[in-house]
Amino acid sequence: MPDREGREAAGDVTGPVHIVGVGLIGTSIGLACRRAGLEVLLSDVSSENVRTASGLGAGRPFVPGDRPGLVVVAVPPDHLAAEILRALDDGSATVTDVGSVKSGPSAAVEHHPGAARYVGSHPMAGSERSGPLAGSAALFDGRPWAVTPHPGSAAEAVAAVDALARLCGAVPVRLSPAEHDRAVARTSHVPHLLASLVASRLAEAPADHLALSGQGVRDVTRVAGGDPALYGQIVAANADAVLDLLGQVRAQLDAVIDAVASHDRERLVGLLSRGVEGARAIPGKHGAPRRPTGTVFVSVPDEPGELARLFAEAGASGVNIEDVRIDHDPGRPVGLVELVVDETRADHLLASLESKGWVAHR
Amino acid sequence: MPDREGREAAGDVTGPVHIVGVGLIGTSIGLACRRAGLEVLLSDVSSENVRTASGLGAGRPFVPGDRPGLVVVAVPPDHLAAEILRALDDGSATVTDVGSVKSGPSAAVEHHPGAARYVGSHPMAGSERSGPLAGSAALFDGRPWAVTPHPGSAAEAVAAVDALARLCGAVPVRLSPAEHDRAVARTSHVPHLLASLVASRLAEAPADHLALSGQGVRDVTRVAGGDPALYGQIVAANADAVLDLLGQVRAQLDAVIDAVASHDRERLVGLLSRGVEGARAIPGKHGAPRRPTGTVFVSVPDEPGELARLFAEAGASGVNIEDVRIDHDPGRPVGLVELVVDETRADHLLASLESKGWVAHR
Repeated sequence: MPDREGREAAGDVTGPVHIVGVGLIGTSIGLACRRAGLEVLLSDVSSENVRTASGLGAGRPFVPGDRPGLVVVAVPPDHLAAEILRALDDGSATVTDVGSVKSGPSAAVEHHPGAARYVGSHPMAGSERSGPLAGSAALFDGRPWAVTPHPGSAAEAVAAVDALARLCGAVPVRLSPAEHDRAVARTSHVPHLLASLVASRLAEAPADHLALSGQGVRDVTRVAGGDPALYGQIVAANADAVLDLLGQVRAQLDAVIDAVASHDRERLVGLLSRGVEGARAIPGKHGAPRRPTGTVFVSVPDEPGELARLFAEAGASGVNIEDVRIDHDPGRPVGLVELVVDETRADHLLASLESKGWVAHR
Repeated sequence: MPDREGREAAGDVTGPVHIVGVGLIGTSIGLACRRAGLEVLLSDVSSENVRTASGLGAGRPFVPGDRPGLVVVAVPPDHLAAEILRALDDGSATVTDVGSVKSGPSAAVEHHPGAARYVGSHPMAGSERSGPLAGSAALFDGRPWAVTPHPGSAAEAVAAVDALARLCGAVPVRLSPAEHDRAVARTSHVPHLLASLVASRLAEAPADHLALSGQGVRDVTRVAGGDPALYGQIVAANADAVLDLLGQVRAQLDAVIDAVASHDRERLVGLLSRGVEGARAIPGKHGAPRRPTGTVFVSVPDEPGELARLFAEAGASGVNIEDVRIDHDPGRPVGLVELVVDETRADHLLASLESKGWVAHR
């Protein structure tokens, strides 16, 4: 409802919300704010992007004289700091940004007048598509959204950005800018760079060697397919945290090479065991501790409707499917589907599917 | 049908088939051969394994005087060569093995009497479980199965091993032993080792940093959860091919570190672009050239039956699902399911699901 200054509030977000940069993320935030009934103002260096986003219902074009309650800066990493400073100078709104790296913008803003009104943030969401046409109010559903106050951020500003994340359907996760950058270096940037190193080796491989590719190498290299220009920008903006971890990776790679070359089996197994520990450290579904899971493999004819039948019959067995994987097999019109379920329910699911005629095994 | 020596043939496989080592792989081959009507003889250093496998219907215990037509050696890498030589000495059967590395056994056998009867092989299949109880005749369904003759292998022996692979439902892929080892170093052993390096960095991470883990890092590190003792044996047995590639990885890692440290954006993007090329080089489903795919994201309540309903309604839209991914989101009882489909059908699937009330986006 509008207050006496003509501003509106949805939850704890006070509008109008001004989105600066209406690509995939900016447009999606606009759509989510409109869904919540807030007024949304759009601007972008490309007037076509503004027309597209407003045509999609993400808001209306920003005009001079508009007085936003919250500014969301959603421009590429190279332009973040300048746009945040401009937003602080232009009014009295709370200002956030959604860039992938947080220390740089924070340092640029921290001693600027009005810095108390700035709180960085970073929704962990994206898509293989980009631009306003790919935007969706559902993009952030259930995703973590890092909220990264600097030491001078005002409590009300932090609350407003938390509320924006929740309004978009995401789960706010509070971290300092430097912690955030170290966290994403570890959980995103370094995994991406190493996946790219693995994938680069495949670029040189003879085709008949690649015929032996299984699900493992497909999983390891999937992220390496991402836009090189964008990831180059992100990695460059987080150079310190990335270099720190890459130094550790290089030292451990040298240890692996040394263990293999010197036939030191015990040391090699020790290094691999550290990896098992790390793979298990990733939090389970919905942040809960990992429960033991079991896998049931099912052969499925590659035809429309067969997967639906499989899931209907798996559902009828009363077992909740935790994860699904489809193996792409060469030369055969049968797909192998892995159903990951609670370990204590796997045998029941297997028996139930076999009784319905599925070719399945554990 | 039995011939005059009492041997039986199914397709081009002449039985009885003697399985030496009835763990997961040996037992599964026994079950597949029995399914095809062949006589199967089982032996193992553990008499309990033989009892279990024969209780499952994988064959009967081997007794002195049995005269197999085909011997399949399915013991751990460290014992392969000795068991292959023993099988060649013991009769006139064709001999194969199913070890993960092929040059070592080949070199050990190549100049041995009867070497013409030996052809190495390697089914690209496994499970997170091991032992005879995990065995299944369906384990090899649609999987590649490398067949790796040495220069002295007889043509009939090669045909017999091809036929064994097909009888098990797999797709034979012909490679020399050395080529096979270079291929799996690239598509399996090195990806495993690098996934382990990424995962090791997570073992040291604070819990609130891991809360930002997305699907990318889960995919990259999944294989790193595999049994360290087994992978240690496999990597050690393929040391030369692995070291060659790890040397290339280290050189490229140094180039990445140098590009990031010197802020050489162009070089960094060039290195990432090579990774994109490699990720695209992996053959598509059923060995066909990759068609462009599109992804539809759907929010699904975490309850039994909801996935079934989603797949039933996706199936009703007439769009074939190529791949499925379920995102494990922290702190929210909603799962995000990615449906990968032919790019030209994605918008139709999205519209169809939205019309049924699903919260979905591209």
